[in-house]
Amino acid sequence: MVDTASKSGSERTTRSDRSQYIAQTGPIDVDAPPAAVDVALLGRTLLGTWADIRLASRELVKDPALQRIEGLSLEEHRTRVLGQLRLLVQNGQVHRAFPEALGGGNDHGGNIASFEELVTADPSLQIKSGVQWGLFGAAVLHLGTQRHHEKYLPGIMSLEVPGAFAMTEIGHGSDVASIATTATYDPQTQEFVINTPFRAAWKEFLGNAGKDGIACTLFAQLITNGVNHGVHCFYVPIRDAATGEFLPGVGGIDDGLKGGLNGIDNGRLHFDHVRIPRENLLNRYGDVAADGTYSSPIASPGRRFFTMLGTLVQGRVSLDGAATIGAELALTIAITYGNQRRQFTAASDTDEEVLLDYQRHQRRLIPRLATTYAQVFAHDQLLRKFDEVFSGAGDSDEDRQDLETLAAALKPLSTWHALDTLQEAREACGGAGFITENRLVSLRADLDVYVTFEGDNNVLLQLVAKRLLTDYSKKFAKADAGALARYVVAQAADRAYHGSGLRRLAQTVADFGSTARSVGQLRDPQTQRELLTDRVETMISEVATRLRNANKLSKEKAAELFNSQQNELIEAARAHGELLQWEAFTEALDGIHDAGTKQVLTWVRDLFGLGLIEKHVAWHIIHGRLSPQRAQAVSAYIDRLVARLRPHAQSLVDAFGYEQEHLRSTIATGIEAERQNEAREYYRQLRASGDAPIDEKTLRKKQGK
Amino acid sequence: MVDTASKSGSERTTRSDRSQYIAQTGPIDVDAPPAAVDVALLGRTLLGTWADIRLASRELVKDPALQRIEGLSLEEHRTRVLGQLRLLVQNGQVHRAFPEALGGGNDHGGNIASFEELVTADPSLQIKSGVQWGLFGAAVLHLGTQRHHEKYLPGIMSLEVPGAFAMTEIGHGSDVASIATTATYDPQTQEFVINTPFRAAWKEFLGNAGKDGIACTLFAQLITNGVNHGVHCFYVPIRDAATGEFLPGVGGIDDGLKGGLNGIDNGRLHFDHVRIPRENLLNRYGDVAADGTYSSPIASPGRRFFTMLGTLVQGRVSLDGAATIGAELALTIAITYGNQRRQFTAASDTDEEVLLDYQRHQRRLIPRLATTYAQVFAHDQLLRKFDEVFSGAGDSDEDRQDLETLAAALKPLSTWHALDTLQEAREACGGAGFITENRLVSLRADLDVYVTFEGDNNVLLQLVAKRLLTDYSKKFAKADAGALARYVVAQAADRAYHGSGLRRLAQTVADFGSTARSVGQLRDPQTQRELLTDRVETMISEVATRLRNANKLSKEKAAELFNSQQNELIEAARAHGELLQWEAFTEALDGIHDAGTKQVLTWVRDLFGLGLIEKHVAWHIIHGRLSPQRAQAVSAYIDRLVARLRPHAQSLVDAFGYEQEHLRSTIATGIEAERQNEAREYYRQLRASGDAPIDEKTLRKKQGK
Repeated sequence: MVDTASKSGSERTTRSDRSQYIAQTGPIDVDAPPAAVDVALLGRTLLGTWADIRLASRELVKDPALQRIEGLSLEEHRTRVLGQLRLLVQNGQVHRAFPEALGGGNDHGGNIASFEELVTADPSLQIKSGVQWGLFGAAVLHLGTQRHHEKYLPGIMSLEVPGAFAMTEIGHGSDVASIATTATYDPQTQEFVINTPFRAAWKEFLGNAGKDGIACTLFAQLITNGVNHGVHCFYVPIRDAATGEFLPGVGGIDDGLKGGLNGIDNGRLHFDHVRIPRENLLNRYGDVAADGTYSSPIASPGRRFFTMLGTLVQGRVSLDGAATIGAELALTIAITYGNQRRQFTAASDTDEEVLLDYQRHQRRLIPRLATTYAQVFAHDQLLRKFDEVFSGAGDSDEDRQDLETLAAALKPLSTWHALDTLQEAREACGGAGFITENRLVSLRADLDVYVTFEGDNNVLLQLVAKRLLTDYSKKFAKADAGALARYVVAQAADRAYHGSGLRRLAQTVADFGSTARSVGQLRDPQTQRELLTDRVETMISEVATRLRNANKLSKEKAAELFNSQQNELIEAARAHGELLQWEAFTEALDGIHDAGTKQVLTWVRDLFGLGLIEKHVAWHIIHGRLSPQRAQAVSAYIDRLVARLRPHAQSLVDAFGYEQEHLRSTIATGIEAERQNEAREYYRQLRASGDAPIDEKTLRKKQGK
Repeated sequence: MVDTASKSGSERTTRSDRSQYIAQTGPIDVDAPPAAVDVALLGRTLLGTWADIRLASRELVKDPALQRIEGLSLEEHRTRVLGQLRLLVQNGQVHRAFPEALGGGNDHGGNIASFEELVTADPSLQIKSGVQWGLFGAAVLHLGTQRHHEKYLPGIMSLEVPGAFAMTEIGHGSDVASIATTATYDPQTQEFVINTPFRAAWKEFLGNAGKDGIACTLFAQLITNGVNHGVHCFYVPIRDAATGEFLPGVGGIDDGLKGGLNGIDNGRLHFDHVRIPRENLLNRYGDVAADGTYSSPIASPGRRFFTMLGTLVQGRVSLDGAATIGAELALTIAITYGNQRRQFTAASDTDEEVLLDYQRHQRRLIPRLATTYAQVFAHDQLLRKFDEVFSGAGDSDEDRQDLETLAAALKPLSTWHALDTLQEAREACGGAGFITENRLVSLRADLDVYVTFEGDNNVLLQLVAKRLLTDYSKKFAKADAGALARYVVAQAADRAYHGSGLRRLAQTVADFGSTARSVGQLRDPQTQRELLTDRVETMISEVATRLRNANKLSKEKAAELFNSQQNELIEAARAHGELLQWEAFTEALDGIHDAGTKQVLTWVRDLFGLGLIEKHVAWHIIHGRLSPQRAQAVSAYIDRLVARLRPHAQSLVDAFGYEQEHLRSTIATGIEAERQNEAREYYRQLRASGDAPIDEKTLRKKQGK
């Protein structure tokens, strides 16, 4: 299937004769070369490392039983999604990440890939299964030991035991270390006493806590022999499975309606001196002996805490993928519709313009398409890194830290991009975009919370920034002013992108004034790389310089100084994440061998890269990296790239590979083209009949008025 | 009520003891001068020209019967909102715009002001009453004549006759002139035959069409004696009032669920040769005699069309106001919560930081607060202009055009800003922001469609751009290169802002390089004005230059050339709208005489103005208006302004004047501070008891590990 730059509709159009409106869209007047995208080949590339598993998951969710029904009440939606989880169990799709001994597949990357695709069925289904198997189950798997696996995982895997992941409290979300729930060991009875000391310590926003959960993995401060050993995780039954009533000492309330994801029963939990057996401590990283003696394989409490939390990174990894799918769906719908919908005549007296032929419409959708492509490639790298760490193929401390930083850098960008793209797509479809049957509004509502859960995006970017600062300061601690120059030379061999990990701050600070001489050079990936890399490095280096005396200040003054750099640091982390996406895109181009596809995708990559440069072009000018004249060339070249990509827009969304069963959007079925054809035919026949009324305007012209 | 820059919570906090958390928020370390906002005085200023009417409307909507209940089914919500419209009728609030002879108040500005405030009760209530009285009723009022007023308005005003405004068709939304429904005059029976020729001509997205409407004001191509006189409006019964069934020849479907506004029954309508009496033509601007002879007081069909549509500008005017209220609610909720919520310790070992003390949090909320202030002032000017035109105090053609351009410039900015602000507020409140009971998600969902209805925002901005181009070309048509300079001199006296109308393109092109020498000068309003004005003028002038030979090209080539400038033109229109907002803000400052309030608001205005300059700082550098060094000073000064305004943030949202009955957001009640106080007290008592566990970290330090 090769699309030779015709402005064709989706190949999967089922409700219209595609050839009808291909013929009517006519030629366009941009300098589109005869490059062509091999949609099938590109589609396979986009599916990434776990292509077959993704395809199987997409097949699975074609079953209407797994799909969202709009307009259900809260209770109906919850009931439906719980039933859908049972269907997933029956299908055996969701057990990939669990141990082979228990019937699982021990396939961590494939598990996430499969799980992400559920978002096309219903984001509530995706997130509820994420709560059950990716959080509640994963906590038992990664924080528990053999005895917990054998005792709890079978019930969790089979959904006999629906459970909540009770970490967040009303008073502490991002700052997990400060949660206030306590688990105090009582050596007399060899039990932990779980207690919620005040309202701010109620566990909050927990999926499965509102109604379905009969147990939870609860995070609490472990106290034994008068010492608080910090946050640990416990397996705590909360409801009687038979009656659905809370167990003695446990209470809670239902969070009720949310902005989206209403198929999930979020709720609050609190505990009044609830006693659980000592063995319910998930003791992989910390244990308490019968006499109350605490032990841990990790001596440092700080490192122990981060190690425990680090095992739960898969939530962030999977949101990066699911958000990218959300953006793909949005663009497939809006570009398919924008490629058929016509409004206003401009170039002729009779034919109205296709929306996607308007420059503004192109500017609204095509750069977002480029960003989505970058995210697809970056996400596959993230998923491979995740699989390496969790399969044990590469799970050193550094690997784990790189994985966490990579996830913390990419998840914010992709989740924000999904909301931005869903909204722009909804607006680009006008009133039709606001109608639920066209899908965009519900998807946006459901994906809204992705930007603040599993790590608030702004907080995650700060984590990335701190890592960048740490890497920087490790090199330059107590170094003199000349250290930077030596560092640059010493690390010259380290310039290649570490595909599966974190991009190192190891590039030269070049004089781009002398290299970015023309538009031609903006196309050079090395120019793009240097501009993007230099911005990250310079921002970090500038902040580091401003912070260099912080350790000489009082804690209060140091905090104030750090706070004055917070915004800049977060922007630096964002720039770092964008660079990672750009590098992943560039690396992916190497794997594409079809000439036409490679040409078009190179334009897409250039559009992404130059779009990032344009967004911060003032920075590049102010810092002397681009002259004002060259900065103007960036925007001019972006205009050309957008126009050049316009004829390929449909192929580029078709390559995402979604079928009508995944899109479920009336305006993406071809119905708009059908209606237009009907209208044209009506007018054609009217003109032919001689009965057409004459326009007053025309008449007045004839009459010389 | 004077807030001396304490970081106090809302005065209207009802569920907490305000003094408790004022005491605990402590001092901050920015260079806040002793300026203070007089909240009551500022609040009165913000209420604007129709302050008393706004206050009365706010009192009215404290009645729970008028307020949104979340979680209703589609049917329940619709039924409730229809009932709320009846309550409005009983109250007599909604008749202000109608003629005094029919019991109305003939108060156009007051009517809109009152109507806008309904958005705090339920946006569905606002928009459904807008459909009934602002569109359906206003079409009869403004496009009909005495006989229509007497016959139809009483039933419309009393809601005995709920009706739809049947303009948009599936195939034509923004391009109203191209709608395809026909009204063909039959002199034999003296009737119009209303017909929908094909599916694309179905009327679509009409409020009241899904269920409640028994009539509509229908826009159709008026055809008589074989001539199409263009779009006219007709009064057409559609349903049997007794049975609710469609009348013969009329059909339609319900649009069902939407992304928001589900209290309104949007739907489609179609007509199969439905006959209505000749007198049902709303004939103020065009009439058909019994014999079929067409006549109109406006000879030009084009001008006639725009005159008819122009009478319906109030929809755009009121959306500008309602969207601004939406942003006010969002910021009141998020700033009140952000001023109480604490997370992470930084400056001390025990007290966590208040969210709003984080630089990033300030950067997220305070500039949006500045924009909201600018919109409040700009909206009052728009409303005054609207009132002048519709009261007849100033209703020349130029006045009407100015009003339309002003509305087209402001409505896009304020509706986009409302969505952006509601989303940022929701994210700034974290998971709590996603819970429906905290209000932000529902408001955002409801206001979503404001950006594309009553004129798609991008289309409206193009209208503004075309007006700017026209004004420009009127001056320079066939002029030589020296004309610009002479024009600038000639118009020097015209530099003052025309507060109630459109800002003219009449300013000099100054050399800002020589005036904006320092941060000090950035504070000078004249510097801000010149930078903002110059950008609009230069963008328009550059585009005009590129388009100057368009009339020598073929229609197709001219369209292509124009299309190549579309994005730039829309950006120029946006810049023009922003300038109007800035001017309105600056003018409003003249009316504030309390020194502290004036000082703080001047900072807010500067933040707004410099924020606009920062957003496009690359443009100012590239065009030589700011040196790169001065551009950096803009951002640095913004950082200072944000920090300086932080202590006043609560006062600035308190001045919006919303009470708990309007906010209806649990997190804005003070509950967060209550919970924190409870937690602090718990820990205080624990420490005092001597039973507090020791931290492992502390222990390890003591043990020298």
